[in-house]
Amino acid sequence: MTEHSLWAFSRAVHRAINEGQRGDLEALIDDDVDWAIYGPIDMFPFLGARRGKAAVLEVIRQIADNVRVHRFDRESIMLGVDSAASMIRYSLTVLDANKPISLRLAHFAQFRAGRLLSIRALVDTFDLVEQVLGRPIHLPRMAS
Amino acid sequence: MTEHSLWAFSRAVHRAINEGQRGDLEALIDDDVDWAIYGPIDMFPFLGARRGKAAVLEVIRQIADNVRVHRFDRESIMLGVDSAASMIRYSLTVLDANKPISLRLAHFAQFRAGRLLSIRALVDTFDLVEQVLGRPIHLPRMAS
Repeated sequence: MTEHSLWAFSRAVHRAINEGQRGDLEALIDDDVDWAIYGPIDMFPFLGARRGKAAVLEVIRQIADNVRVHRFDRESIMLGVDSAASMIRYSLTVLDANKPISLRLAHFAQFRAGRLLSIRALVDTFDLVEQVLGRPIHLPRMAS
Repeated sequence: MTEHSLWAFSRAVHRAINEGQRGDLEALIDDDVDWAIYGPIDMFPFLGARRGKAAVLEVIRQIADNVRVHRFDRESIMLGVDSAASMIRYSLTVLDANKPISLRLAHFAQFRAGRLLSIRALVDTFDLVEQVLGRPIHLPRMAS
């Protein structure tokens, strides 16, 4: 039984972010990859949609310029033949502020021939914004 | 081949929210269900964690008091024997404001004997907050 494509991809992403080594990752991304991490791009320009390997490698470089991964726990996971979804709890450091933050991310990924073909990721972005700002944003209560 | 538990659960949730009929749903939730939709509970008291069938039925009632589902598109889905994960694009109306909003939600769910045992859901909450406020929140640019 060969290893699922998710594991090699996950190791390569974390190595690219923490060590700046994108060589492994480059071989694990389809030339025409479709990439999106939904979130406020005004504050975090490395969120949003990207298309193609060069754009994704560049966005990983931008993420590496801004954060380090301390640890991650995969709280839920589902694996298909060429697909994977998981919910991950990350502990990160924001480099500029030397500030620890934690966030949950859920992703749905498709692979082809061991390479990432598409990925869509959601984050609890309001919590992320408050942590990076370092203060709560006052909100009215909506519910009746 | 019997229908996956996700489909009956999904129909029952949407019926409970849009029609206030929680009878179907009650039969599809484990007594000891573990439930969480991560997000700012100060603004949306019906987000957050709940434990047990009564608490989940009550939170569905609160959601039904505040929103209606217009449509939903399941953009990604993975099904296991007793598990399911999907990413869903919702078009909703906020009842108080009669305001249309759209949001993406990712969930990971576990079932036992056809009943929901646990669910964890993530939403792009910053986007949600801005839509419900009806105005953008100014954010500094973080990235270097």
